[in-house]
Amino acid sequence: MAIALIIPDRKLEDLQQRLQHALPTTRIEIWPALTNPAEITFAVLWKQPAGVVATLPGLKALQSFGAGVDGILADTSLPPLPLARIVDPALTAAMLQYLTGIESYYRLRLDTFTAQQQQKQWQPKSSRKLQTLCVLGLGELGTAAALHFQQLGYQVSGWARKQKDIAGIRCYAGNSQLALALAEADLVICLLPLTAQTDNMLDAQVFAMMKPGTIFINVARGAIVDDKALLAALDCGQLQAACLDVFREEPLPPTHAFWSHPAILVTPHTSAVTRVETVVAQIAENYRRSQRGLQLLNQVDLTQGY
Amino acid sequence: MAIALIIPDRKLEDLQQRLQHALPTTRIEIWPALTNPAEITFAVLWKQPAGVVATLPGLKALQSFGAGVDGILADTSLPPLPLARIVDPALTAAMLQYLTGIESYYRLRLDTFTAQQQQKQWQPKSSRKLQTLCVLGLGELGTAAALHFQQLGYQVSGWARKQKDIAGIRCYAGNSQLALALAEADLVICLLPLTAQTDNMLDAQVFAMMKPGTIFINVARGAIVDDKALLAALDCGQLQAACLDVFREEPLPPTHAFWSHPAILVTPHTSAVTRVETVVAQIAENYRRSQRGLQLLNQVDLTQGY
Repeated sequence: MAIALIIPDRKLEDLQQRLQHALPTTRIEIWPALTNPAEITFAVLWKQPAGVVATLPGLKALQSFGAGVDGILADTSLPPLPLARIVDPALTAAMLQYLTGIESYYRLRLDTFTAQQQQKQWQPKSSRKLQTLCVLGLGELGTAAALHFQQLGYQVSGWARKQKDIAGIRCYAGNSQLALALAEADLVICLLPLTAQTDNMLDAQVFAMMKPGTIFINVARGAIVDDKALLAALDCGQLQAACLDVFREEPLPPTHAFWSHPAILVTPHTSAVTRVETVVAQIAENYRRSQRGLQLLNQVDLTQGY
Repeated sequence: MAIALIIPDRKLEDLQQRLQHALPTTRIEIWPALTNPAEITFAVLWKQPAGVVATLPGLKALQSFGAGVDGILADTSLPPLPLARIVDPALTAAMLQYLTGIESYYRLRLDTFTAQQQQKQWQPKSSRKLQTLCVLGLGELGTAAALHFQQLGYQVSGWARKQKDIAGIRCYAGNSQLALALAEADLVICLLPLTAQTDNMLDAQVFAMMKPGTIFINVARGAIVDDKALLAALDCGQLQAACLDVFREEPLPPTHAFWSHPAILVTPHTSAVTRVETVVAQIAENYRRSQRGLQLLNQVDLTQGY
């Protein structure tokens, strides 16, 4: 019995050591240097190459190293094993800190003032009056964000595929209510999971549902947004600004128009990064559960994709 | 009996109308269009030209239109009348919003990421770990800022000319303790009043007292900072970054080096602007008190200059 860490392009020694400390009698190996693939009974995955998981016949369960599982499920040869994702209070706190900082950035007009500084222009303006906010996606992070901004004084609406009931949040559900959810929001925050339904969901039609001058923030997945439609919505003023932390292709290619658009703030997927310290216990527990055939912590419903 | 509004380069009709509404039997006039200078018994001042106040022989009291009075006291011909400043809860709230937003801006490395965006560089980095903070100046705004950041989890030190006692804040006093106050702060926020003692106070010697890599925020008065010493401290890395909302000369002249320094964020004196709606009652009350010879609300100690 051994655990494989299949997370390319990332230094994994720290995770390996901490997991080893939590599971002293289990071998923790870093793919592709596996001693014996047949002995691997549990795999921790992030952006794993397609087909790799299928080469490990002894696997009992899979663990995403992040909150999302879209990158894992994109592998069409993935065996139908129990799959868990990370639900990390520290991750949620980091996301709320990011969103709060971005909200302040726009409220204080730091986008405007940094642009004016480049032109050496002194043009005082009072803060933006931002009062209404819509959260797309009401999972762990979306619900936390909706409640957080409600507590800050925002009038908050939320939208999800299925009806939710969250105190103080006007919840809308399904495609037919999307326009209602978006219609009055000064800020729209995307925290949807990436699934077959949400791929390219935020297109020209959806941006047109937003209030003219909306500020759009995407901290979910880049592929949920139709890039060209977003650029067009910014160019015609339907959107006032966009803050993008996630992209269809990461790193964002140097040729992509997002980099140089004056109304776009690009951050390099830093809104909420999985921190090794805080997730080791969750992964170790899921390993133990998987070996006993128990339900995993934060197990994903594979029929829904989140 | 009449009130003069001596506030050049600002539209004053709104203030005039609201004051008129609060004081229906008193004439409210906008300098320089005064019907009879001898009838002016109360003046509201902001950046008044030197010598103007001395030409109004009937004045009983003076009211600053802002939280500071340094611009008013700079007039050496100013008669020794009671002088009040604005202490406005809305002003304090706006200042805390500004400081919180700037703190997030640096914690989230938005300074770094906006610079990297211009170079189309994707370089993810986790948030800055900012944990210690020093507030220079422990008046209304300084005390509020110190307590605010303490509640956010910061270890906060404060410095003022005279010893203060604020729960949870390590308070230092006088020139001899300035180095102690500054020594451990990741962030230094300047909220000092501008007086003869603080003019050019933040010089090379004081920047050298700060922890290497400190981030400096000035939301008080530009003249408290030695501009060249600040630039030198940034260039040699003693300071990591500076956010400046106030300047020795405002608007900041287009030729000033602050505009184009990569480690400086310039905002055009927008951190906390006096809002007419919220100050009219305070000014009207001080007018009434001045006519009866009573102590003013928020009267300034002229021997201290704040």
